[in-house]
Amino acid sequence: MTITLNRQRFIETMQEQAAIGATENGGLHRLALSDEDKQVRDWLVDQMEAEDLSVRVDAFGNMFGRRDGISDTAPVLVGSHLDSQPYGGIYDGALGVVSALEFIRELNDEDIKTERPIEIVNWTNEEGSRFQPTLQGSGVWAGVRDLNDEYAKTDSDGTTVEAELERIGYKGTYPAEPSEEYDSYLELHVEQGPYLDDAGDDVGIVTGIVGLRWGAITYRGEANHSGATPMHRRSDALVAANDVMTQVRRIPTNLGQQTVGTVGAVDVHPNSINVIPGEVTFTYGFRDPSRDVLDNAHERLLFEAETAAKREGVTWNWEQRATADPVHFNDRCINAVERAAADLGYDSKRIFSGGVHDATHANEVCDTGMVFAVSEEGKSHTEEEYTNWDGCYNAANTLATAAFSLAVDEV
Amino acid sequence: MTITLNRQRFIETMQEQAAIGATENGGLHRLALSDEDKQVRDWLVDQMEAEDLSVRVDAFGNMFGRRDGISDTAPVLVGSHLDSQPYGGIYDGALGVVSALEFIRELNDEDIKTERPIEIVNWTNEEGSRFQPTLQGSGVWAGVRDLNDEYAKTDSDGTTVEAELERIGYKGTYPAEPSEEYDSYLELHVEQGPYLDDAGDDVGIVTGIVGLRWGAITYRGEANHSGATPMHRRSDALVAANDVMTQVRRIPTNLGQQTVGTVGAVDVHPNSINVIPGEVTFTYGFRDPSRDVLDNAHERLLFEAETAAKREGVTWNWEQRATADPVHFNDRCINAVERAAADLGYDSKRIFSGGVHDATHANEVCDTGMVFAVSEEGKSHTEEEYTNWDGCYNAANTLATAAFSLAVDEV
Repeated sequence: MTITLNRQRFIETMQEQAAIGATENGGLHRLALSDEDKQVRDWLVDQMEAEDLSVRVDAFGNMFGRRDGISDTAPVLVGSHLDSQPYGGIYDGALGVVSALEFIRELNDEDIKTERPIEIVNWTNEEGSRFQPTLQGSGVWAGVRDLNDEYAKTDSDGTTVEAELERIGYKGTYPAEPSEEYDSYLELHVEQGPYLDDAGDDVGIVTGIVGLRWGAITYRGEANHSGATPMHRRSDALVAANDVMTQVRRIPTNLGQQTVGTVGAVDVHPNSINVIPGEVTFTYGFRDPSRDVLDNAHERLLFEAETAAKREGVTWNWEQRATADPVHFNDRCINAVERAAADLGYDSKRIFSGGVHDATHANEVCDTGMVFAVSEEGKSHTEEEYTNWDGCYNAANTLATAAFSLAVDEV
Repeated sequence: MTITLNRQRFIETMQEQAAIGATENGGLHRLALSDEDKQVRDWLVDQMEAEDLSVRVDAFGNMFGRRDGISDTAPVLVGSHLDSQPYGGIYDGALGVVSALEFIRELNDEDIKTERPIEIVNWTNEEGSRFQPTLQGSGVWAGVRDLNDEYAKTDSDGTTVEAELERIGYKGTYPAEPSEEYDSYLELHVEQGPYLDDAGDDVGIVTGIVGLRWGAITYRGEANHSGATPMHRRSDALVAANDVMTQVRRIPTNLGQQTVGTVGAVDVHPNSINVIPGEVTFTYGFRDPSRDVLDNAHERLLFEAETAAKREGVTWNWEQRATADPVHFNDRCINAVERAAADLGYDSKRIFSGGVHDATHANEVCDTGMVFAVSEEGKSHTEEEYTNWDGCYNAANTLATAAFSLAVDEV
């Protein structure tokens, strides 16, 4: 049996959420635990209550809405996140939460009962841009991260996660952990890469998630006058940093076919045209489906960092920002998603996720699977992110049909 | 005849000015036209009035204090600047203004008349860090820069120079141009390089100032997800920028012995660990005593910038930030300074300035010379900038003696 959502209402619900934190250029600026995040959370509570879901907020702000099943057994969990990147797109995360909500509405409209309870979820701070690390809420929930450690994380103004949870009224009373045994977790997300668009597919069947190694390197040299200091007397933190940043582009070419490496952020001090930089911090990230490749990339980076420091006569240190090993989903969920796409008549293919997702942590708790919506030209984490309504709707129907098949399974 | 200042009072005056905008680490944060700049200007007015100087402020905030001569003829101008780099040192600029002031005090104490009038000057925004370009006030005064163009320059908050001059009460009523013919301009400044300290000299005789070419390159690529975007689908603005920034270190090695090249500031957008940089702007600067070398460096840089853009598939543009041809001082002023140092019994040597100074622009108006104080280890534009009191005092006496010799010259 397939589930097809009310297309018009589905699009309207997407547009409703996209209006909260909307940017001039049609994107979304809805950073975790900001005023905009509070607004969209309040909106979600209203929607869930209107559908008679029992709403819970846990101590880390993760939001759940439960629809009872025929039997009181392990539920199927479906959802994603409503926070966004700075000046990001309107689909990333939100499409997964809206699809879960519309799935519930469709069941309510048709008065369909499922054997298992179904819960929808909005995870706190998936993006990890205002507060690092990424996947914070699901990490705490899955027991991969310590609640108090994550409460204490600060944004660039020094404000803590805990203070912001309290300020916006989303430090809930339920423990930030699985409230019971879960049957499975399904998440719909935009691909964020170009593979489905390139292949002309309708929807993607995700088989796993790349692992990642994120860190930051800081060099300290000597800030000095940019004109009067001869070249042979310089210890320029940026020159050392440049040597390594260049290698972050090169290292993937020596490793795996799917390896990617990126320098995303650079902070230079004092950052004045007329002063040799005394201190530079840059972030890097590597991703690959293989743990060995990731470890190799990390080792090569540290070798380059040490070499550059010696070359320039500067000191350096390394800080880990995030680490995650590759995830391989189990066959039951992969097959449920693949069968749903086939039953709906969609062209699909199996794909390994290049982005990390809350499903990474959910996979520690229960069987997990994912559906990918087509990202046009693979654009993501930018206001130009785009998935047409067909792509959104196909993925949402696939999610709903797959989740339904898991929820009606014999207990 | 030599002039030697009151050493104790000279040190106290240096300390008085250093208290205005003092940083925790013993440096100075007194950005042009800031509240701290207003405070130190008010302080200078008080000092000049106490010495019976007639004080003038011109329309660009340049401050003059005049001590009449025996004859009303072309004056000798002596001074420097009181603004500082962000978290800079207490000597850069201020040492020149304080020395000029103490020179006047010494003449007053001893009731010495000079043939020519003597004026002391504090130039507006020498540093060019809050508002670019550097040497702004002296540039307007010398007619090298247009008053209204410079009024309209903005800091990173979008505040204009003119608005800040009005706010702090230093948009004066006198035209921002030489009020009459000047005999000469002498400026004492810290060397900002290591040459005098390395050689063990007491003071430096400056024969000229390197030229410079400052600019900024901006690359625009595609901001995108750092995990899901394959390497072959990227247009990473930072990768292109890195290629060129690396060349800024290399280019000087192919040119002149004294050529320097520096990348001082880098701004990455959106500057998130998880996003491929969509836009990067970096500043660069080259300096050399030869105009040909500078033009060559600039050409090589643009060649590298274009090459990097093609390599990465990004667009780019270039913006000029400042340009100045090398300056060669005239013999009369060089000799006056050299004779003063010799008469005072100091070890000195002739030196070409690696930093630019307001003397660059003054040289367009009248005969110009400079005295350098020893910079320990050549540190400059940093809180660690240091000149011991002997070094300060030697240079101040050299300035006073040289300026006096010019002021008593037969008219």
